[in-house]
Amino acid sequence: MYELHFAVPFAGAILNSINTRLNAATISVILRHGESKLVFVDCVSRSLILDAISLLPLETQRPILVLITDDSVRPISSEEFLDTYEGLVAKGDPNFQWIRPKSEWDPMILSYTSGTTSSPKGVVHCHRGAFLMAVDSLVDWAVPKQPVYLWTLNMFHTSGWSYPWGMAAVGGTNICVRKFNAATVFNLIERHGVTHMCAAPVVLNMLTNSPREKPLGSPVRVLTAGSPPPAAVLQRTEALGFVVSHGYGLTEVIGVVISCAWKPGWNLLPATERARLKARQGVRTAGLAEMDVVDPDSGKPVNHDGSTLGEVVVRGGCVMLGYLKDPEANSKCFKNGWFYTGDVGVMHPDGYLEIKDRSKDVIISGGENLSSVEVESVLYSNPAINEAAVVARPDDMWGETPCAFVSLREGLEKKPTEKEMIEYCRARLPHFMVPKTVVFKGDLPKTSTGKIQKHVLRKEAKDMGSLKHSRL
Amino acid sequence: MYELHFAVPFAGAILNSINTRLNAATISVILRHGESKLVFVDCVSRSLILDAISLLPLETQRPILVLITDDSVRPISSEEFLDTYEGLVAKGDPNFQWIRPKSEWDPMILSYTSGTTSSPKGVVHCHRGAFLMAVDSLVDWAVPKQPVYLWTLNMFHTSGWSYPWGMAAVGGTNICVRKFNAATVFNLIERHGVTHMCAAPVVLNMLTNSPREKPLGSPVRVLTAGSPPPAAVLQRTEALGFVVSHGYGLTEVIGVVISCAWKPGWNLLPATERARLKARQGVRTAGLAEMDVVDPDSGKPVNHDGSTLGEVVVRGGCVMLGYLKDPEANSKCFKNGWFYTGDVGVMHPDGYLEIKDRSKDVIISGGENLSSVEVESVLYSNPAINEAAVVARPDDMWGETPCAFVSLREGLEKKPTEKEMIEYCRARLPHFMVPKTVVFKGDLPKTSTGKIQKHVLRKEAKDMGSLKHSRL
Repeated sequence: MYELHFAVPFAGAILNSINTRLNAATISVILRHGESKLVFVDCVSRSLILDAISLLPLETQRPILVLITDDSVRPISSEEFLDTYEGLVAKGDPNFQWIRPKSEWDPMILSYTSGTTSSPKGVVHCHRGAFLMAVDSLVDWAVPKQPVYLWTLNMFHTSGWSYPWGMAAVGGTNICVRKFNAATVFNLIERHGVTHMCAAPVVLNMLTNSPREKPLGSPVRVLTAGSPPPAAVLQRTEALGFVVSHGYGLTEVIGVVISCAWKPGWNLLPATERARLKARQGVRTAGLAEMDVVDPDSGKPVNHDGSTLGEVVVRGGCVMLGYLKDPEANSKCFKNGWFYTGDVGVMHPDGYLEIKDRSKDVIISGGENLSSVEVESVLYSNPAINEAAVVARPDDMWGETPCAFVSLREGLEKKPTEKEMIEYCRARLPHFMVPKTVVFKGDLPKTSTGKIQKHVLRKEAKDMGSLKHSRL
Repeated sequence: MYELHFAVPFAGAILNSINTRLNAATISVILRHGESKLVFVDCVSRSLILDAISLLPLETQRPILVLITDDSVRPISSEEFLDTYEGLVAKGDPNFQWIRPKSEWDPMILSYTSGTTSSPKGVVHCHRGAFLMAVDSLVDWAVPKQPVYLWTLNMFHTSGWSYPWGMAAVGGTNICVRKFNAATVFNLIERHGVTHMCAAPVVLNMLTNSPREKPLGSPVRVLTAGSPPPAAVLQRTEALGFVVSHGYGLTEVIGVVISCAWKPGWNLLPATERARLKARQGVRTAGLAEMDVVDPDSGKPVNHDGSTLGEVVVRGGCVMLGYLKDPEANSKCFKNGWFYTGDVGVMHPDGYLEIKDRSKDVIISGGENLSSVEVESVLYSNPAINEAAVVARPDDMWGETPCAFVSLREGLEKKPTEKEMIEYCRARLPHFMVPKTVVFKGDLPKTSTGKIQKHVLRKEAKDMGSLKHSRL
């Protein structure tokens, strides 16, 4: 996968890294929509891809298949495959001159969004955008020469935030692993002297909730993005010896374009205050021309007061060319020269952005816009909580009220009750933000990239029916 | 000067930083050729600029003048100036919206080459090129966030290798100083906790030849470029605690585009071998699309054997738009999509470039192309030598033979003779490369940016007349 981030563009083709955690039906849709000509199939995903191809409509041209084998897995030869990857490489021409794009605006990357809230969309990026983001990300994270980089972030997720190219530019060592858990990550860090890794907040949470809670031998720099990390998770991660940088990006900008630039003076603040500041998404990186938070109807910037909600908009060379074959989605997200992210945030007076929600996740209770992320942040600060997600539940009186789904940490002596959780929130939140319903679950439903599927929970909350306020 | 690197482009204008060490006549030519509309005049250069303007032809429109004053210098009010710089800033509109270029290809920077070998040429760079080089330089030098940067390199010299913008991008502290010597540099390093500085090899030589030869308290990263640093100078600089990176650039690419990427294994080599490797210019940075060493007549790449001389050519987004109003110079340097640098080098088998000379500095002796830089490198390794420059002297038998001009270090107990210097070289160089003439001088002639003026020495060598070989 790492090599193909170079080989495919060098061959003049477009790279579409497909999420191997998707099911065959979705992969089939992606193969057809993207019109894949050649598919490199990792041996562990062999039957998944063969199933996906069998689901292609009869009239669709079948892609050529190449099998990626591995020392640890016995290669299965079969007629479906043209060759193995290594076989193909061995037949390669060492004097091959790479095919340069005619224009830097030529497409290079096709990435399907994970689809937390809607069906996957095909995001197209050009060579120029990928270059800009790769270089910009190195500057912003201040990556030194020859780092040792652990791939906890999947490369199929927003092109690994552009680090496949970035690591090559700084002569980095790439530690790749098919599957991981907390123990594997800690082992690899020690064995290879890992210095850098990217990880969604859900991975940080996994690391800090693992039984091994002894600090690292030497600090590991972690870049986290993808969803707002709860302050409590940040704090626990740093206590283990990780040096966490936090930023914001999305598939449509091929990496992290807003980052919480850290001020030395902030190191003097208490840990909780530091974590609260670090949970903000931050300021634009050099790769972005502009960013703002605007009223989605008028397109005018909201007040930079840290409280007025608006939609995050960005402009710059790292914004995608557009969604493949989707004029409707393109006309919705490109307006007045801006890309509308669909994320809801506030702009602080110091110019730092803070994401409050996906626009679909905002809860409107008694006319008040309420950020589910803020409620989740309070829930995460409770030591009994493993994961938390807050969605709207229909409410007889208020229209909607917050409904919290939580999973508890393992090995608790005493499990909290719904009433105790509500009281915990009431002590820490304005009344209208306190969840009126708390549901305990073994595990929260997740997308293939580890994001909590709020749309599943939203349906579950809706199916509970309207909350009645008999006492009123 | 630092602020104007932002203010002038933000105002939609083009910035031309003029070398204040030039004489009034040359500055007058530059003001006229560049058609300056507004000139910011530092108070210490006041009479120089007024002289330059008085030399403008009568029909030339006089530029508006603004005086930059300083706490340490009493401001002189005079009718020639519209206002002081601070006065102008105070009248500024805080709500001014910066004027974005219509296209990223719009000109932003005009820089006159220092003219070691010919009359100054006006190099024009666009916004796109300046951005690329600024970001590329940060990645390549691995500049961390919030460095403390000492401006030993002048900003009028190749836009300070793009670091005015680079330092802003990483939140750096800029330590500026009007004039410096070795003592000032060491004082500023200690007082401000300097972490980074750029310096031509002549500055490194100055630092290591200063009486204070005690190591630094904490390491300072130095990027050196501009001319090939003698291995002996590199070695002495590192012994003082400077961590030297070496690269190659020129005004036409607005910074350092080739850099001696350091391999960890090389740290195990002896100091002289390390210095020899570090004196190579290196490999292309990510900001350059391609570089090569070609036969200047055929345009074909020379053998990558570390010995075949050819002209260095580059391609990429950081190459200038062209020389202002100079179609002849443009047609000479832009050929087949490449920019011809005029520098002569070899390509080593490992892909590292090593500059051997300016094309005009190559000595052709008995049909052999001979690099003056290699001869100089041997002279610099002699502890008695302060500076050395080798040029061609006409020779009755060989056409040309090397003629060395040297200045000696201060406080020597015994000054070497011409014969001793020749013997020193003969022990270390092939016979045809050994200087047949050695001239001792108090000081070598320099350009305003500190480069040795070989054309002056070349004339001096020519005026000596042909070397006779009576004994043959």
